[in-house]
Amino acid sequence: MSRPAAGVRAPILVVGSVALDSVRTPFGEVTEALGGSASYFSISASHFAPVRMIAVVGDDFPAAHRELFESRGIDLSGLETSAGRTFRWRGEYSVDLGHAHTLETQLNVFSAFHPKLDETHRATPLVFLANIDPDLQLEVLRQVRGAQLTLSDTMNYWIARKPDRVLEVLREVDIALLNEEEARALAGETQLIRAADRLLEQGARSVIIKKGEHGALFQSRDDRFITPAFPVASLSDPTGAGDSFAGGFLGWLSRCGRRDPGAMRQALVAGSVMASIAIEGFSPTRLVEIRREEIAERMQVLHQLVDFDLDPSVLTSNEP
Amino acid sequence: MSRPAAGVRAPILVVGSVALDSVRTPFGEVTEALGGSASYFSISASHFAPVRMIAVVGDDFPAAHRELFESRGIDLSGLETSAGRTFRWRGEYSVDLGHAHTLETQLNVFSAFHPKLDETHRATPLVFLANIDPDLQLEVLRQVRGAQLTLSDTMNYWIARKPDRVLEVLREVDIALLNEEEARALAGETQLIRAADRLLEQGARSVIIKKGEHGALFQSRDDRFITPAFPVASLSDPTGAGDSFAGGFLGWLSRCGRRDPGAMRQALVAGSVMASIAIEGFSPTRLVEIRREEIAERMQVLHQLVDFDLDPSVLTSNEP
Repeated sequence: MSRPAAGVRAPILVVGSVALDSVRTPFGEVTEALGGSASYFSISASHFAPVRMIAVVGDDFPAAHRELFESRGIDLSGLETSAGRTFRWRGEYSVDLGHAHTLETQLNVFSAFHPKLDETHRATPLVFLANIDPDLQLEVLRQVRGAQLTLSDTMNYWIARKPDRVLEVLREVDIALLNEEEARALAGETQLIRAADRLLEQGARSVIIKKGEHGALFQSRDDRFITPAFPVASLSDPTGAGDSFAGGFLGWLSRCGRRDPGAMRQALVAGSVMASIAIEGFSPTRLVEIRREEIAERMQVLHQLVDFDLDPSVLTSNEP
Repeated sequence: MSRPAAGVRAPILVVGSVALDSVRTPFGEVTEALGGSASYFSISASHFAPVRMIAVVGDDFPAAHRELFESRGIDLSGLETSAGRTFRWRGEYSVDLGHAHTLETQLNVFSAFHPKLDETHRATPLVFLANIDPDLQLEVLRQVRGAQLTLSDTMNYWIARKPDRVLEVLREVDIALLNEEEARALAGETQLIRAADRLLEQGARSVIIKKGEHGALFQSRDDRFITPAFPVASLSDPTGAGDSFAGGFLGWLSRCGRRDPGAMRQALVAGSVMASIAIEGFSPTRLVEIRREEIAERMQVLHQLVDFDLDPSVLTSNEP
């Protein structure tokens, strides 16, 4: 049993939502199942590293969900319980599964959510700001100035309402995570590669653009990397794919203990794999049961999916 | 100067259209410029191998275009000249550049096109059937029974009108080339990976699905491969991207002299590169001027874009 040096597994802080989701897709439905960005993220990341969660639930939050988090070793000292009902979301996906159609959002206790970080939380080296109000994201960022690496998510809702604040977050974090539509909207560019370039011109240090079934693109000032999506055999529910991606991404960086471009590439692949696992089930069910060996196998499949030998001699001989 | 064994550069036959295109995109426009599937394909493939063209033009076809083909060493013995006007297409692209909006199609002499193959044409080892009427594609296929490798293209127009004939072509060729929408329509599946699987169930030996800015997917009974699109700095006109892709794909297979899965992967990358070159200019202007060294460089960029080191030990240690 190999035991890496203590401190290699840098803890990860997530600030986001814990919700009860009712979701219908062409492949089934669930009612008031565990959901929310912090839930998907932390269960995904927990396969790689210690996770600390900052979120709020109501006093109706089922003990079983709390126990699930605890069974994954997730530190719940930042999971506040407020008087009232837990955040609820109800949505459905059409047959193309590309977009969630929100049927109902009950913010409940989440409407007054104000992240409270103690000393330990503030000293966490890796930080994920899930798609909450950018003003709250900025508040958290000011408290974790010493973090080694910060990753933010956002959503069209905030890009439409607070574009300047979203851009401020984008400039302050190390990596900004967006999906295709968000990147196009924020950058004002339809071609994704140009959108990524534009976001860097707008001040981002690096961005990850999630492209759904087409994979993900990483763009920094020094590197550009593309990974396809892992080809899932049975898609059930796309909810939480992006947060599970983020969990795999930061989880890998923590676990491998490196922050160089090569590690970023591996982390993107790990993120892609965790997203593929999340969408195979409703709620984070598949994320809970997956074994690390399967994660490693899927990373190998993705490697095999894109690998080819370069043979420049075929082209550079002088033969016409 | 290395000179590969004679016969390694297997000639390639293309059956398709030669047209005069008037195209407008957000980046410019051209009027009655050289276009057509056989034009893009043959100029693209001519960087790799000898090409023989089967097509028809009217007696108004500019001598300069014929000379351009000849300067690329393209065998025009199958380029028929009929009394009448050359096929004309007029279209425009909106800002997202995803779809051509056809403003006018004048088939002219192309409406009576009936591919005529002589003995040399019929003995060509590599064959590309561009997106003509599937009945004509089947006629050609019956004449090239001895071909080493056949590749077909199609379009939504034929999938809507003659789905059974399109499927018949798909079953008879070695590789069927489709774009995303065509694959979804023909397979009746929205997820592309499932659409590819379904096309194989429907009898295809292997398929290539072109995904525009997201690259291309190759799926055979034994292999699956994904290449991203080459990130172009300045997109001008998407017309001919698919045919240029096909030219690079078959051209590479001819030039490398192999047909194994590794060669198919390289060929897909070469195809992706040729598509990226085509769309940087209007008409096949950029395809004409590109040097083989640049093609090799772009293949290297694509390799670098997807390459990552596997490090399973990060995950498989027993440390929690």
